[in-house]
Amino acid sequence: MVADQNLFPGVRVVLVEPSHPGNIGASARAMKNMGLKELVLVNPFSFPSPQADARAGNAKDVLSSAEVVSSIDKALEDSQLIIGTSARSRRISWPNLSPKECADQVVKSFAIGETVSLVFGRESKGLTNNELQKCHFHVNIPTGVAYSSLNLGMAVQVICYEILQAMTVVNDEYASEGWDIPKATASSIEYFFSHLESTLIDLDFHDPENPRQLMTRLRRLFNRIRMDQMEVNILRGFLSKINDLKKQKKK
Amino acid sequence: MVADQNLFPGVRVVLVEPSHPGNIGASARAMKNMGLKELVLVNPFSFPSPQADARAGNAKDVLSSAEVVSSIDKALEDSQLIIGTSARSRRISWPNLSPKECADQVVKSFAIGETVSLVFGRESKGLTNNELQKCHFHVNIPTGVAYSSLNLGMAVQVICYEILQAMTVVNDEYASEGWDIPKATASSIEYFFSHLESTLIDLDFHDPENPRQLMTRLRRLFNRIRMDQMEVNILRGFLSKINDLKKQKKK
Repeated sequence: MVADQNLFPGVRVVLVEPSHPGNIGASARAMKNMGLKELVLVNPFSFPSPQADARAGNAKDVLSSAEVVSSIDKALEDSQLIIGTSARSRRISWPNLSPKECADQVVKSFAIGETVSLVFGRESKGLTNNELQKCHFHVNIPTGVAYSSLNLGMAVQVICYEILQAMTVVNDEYASEGWDIPKATASSIEYFFSHLESTLIDLDFHDPENPRQLMTRLRRLFNRIRMDQMEVNILRGFLSKINDLKKQKKK
Repeated sequence: MVADQNLFPGVRVVLVEPSHPGNIGASARAMKNMGLKELVLVNPFSFPSPQADARAGNAKDVLSSAEVVSSIDKALEDSQLIIGTSARSRRISWPNLSPKECADQVVKSFAIGETVSLVFGRESKGLTNNELQKCHFHVNIPTGVAYSSLNLGMAVQVICYEILQAMTVVNDEYASEGWDIPKATASSIEYFFSHLESTLIDLDFHDPENPRQLMTRLRRLFNRIRMDQMEVNILRGFLSKINDLKKQKKK
């Protein structure tokens, strides 16, 4: 049905702890204007709410079908491409996309059936470093220097606008982007990172009391690859072998 | 002064009869976020207003310097390029631009010192045909079919966003964006792969007589990242720890 048209099934907008319900409604409208319908809310301060409904205009269906979850991990668990919005400078740089590059990446992933999450942070302070490190890419909306903080709904609008633009120029280029194995999901990747960290601790290579930036650097490294499921299985098999060796030594 | 930076002197956003003061504030913020400062209001229903101030965030200076006029002709009188936002289909077609083409046009005119007006219509029904015919170009923001009417502030955001994009050579800038550590050299990467392979053999995880595609898959995995030198050092440190453990076990 045309009125329910979701041009991007599997592409989700994830709002982390939005504090103003008006911004949830504005985001829903921005999404539907650009053909996106899947909204996930992580611990919204107030939802549902009349302010969200008012700002949503004719996008109340996006609000009523929104999924509300209690943690970002829950929101991302089956996502295969995760892009988080970020202010420019971070201590450790991360693969960073312009909104247009972000859109190209989203459309490519969408074209091959991947689940995509676009993650937007709190109005006041964005995403935490921990949340940003769950992302394969960061996207930064360039601004003038006088005032660099976009309203949340506006940021959703710009990103969704670019996605619809990118979709209209989509062509065979993307169809040929075949990969032999499906990309790993976020929860599978999180299990891998836990396994990696515990193994590094076990080997006295990593001290959680004095972590320096080891896990951050390793997260950045492996998130850049967007591993497929077989690759995750290989690396976890390798980690298990190391665990076995360590156990044998203890005996 | 940086805080007052107007990147586009002579480029104005003209809002014709906006009925919701919140949209005026949101437009002011969207403008300032993208380096535009000149706002003109034609017969605003309510201005100034606390709702506009609230939605403007740190762009209250754009509101306080806004010019309020009583007719569109007054707003446009010294404009040399006039671009009006328009829904797609009009009885008489007019030179129509995408937001990106609009931005290119604006930046060109700005570069040669022309005065530019970007005209946005009423929330309810946009610009009249008479008003649209005062424009050199129309600009249309593409949308999905399910819901094609953007919020006024959102439309201002998208157009201003594209103008700032057009002004900067963003894409190159982002492609060449700095990374904190130099990329590893090919020989360093080859040493890493040798070390990885010998470690995998040592752990009986890899049999060179029956390699299947293990090393191929691992090469593909790590080559996708273009590792930096510190990342290579971390991984080789990890491999050395595994080697130590294996040696201790043998003793």
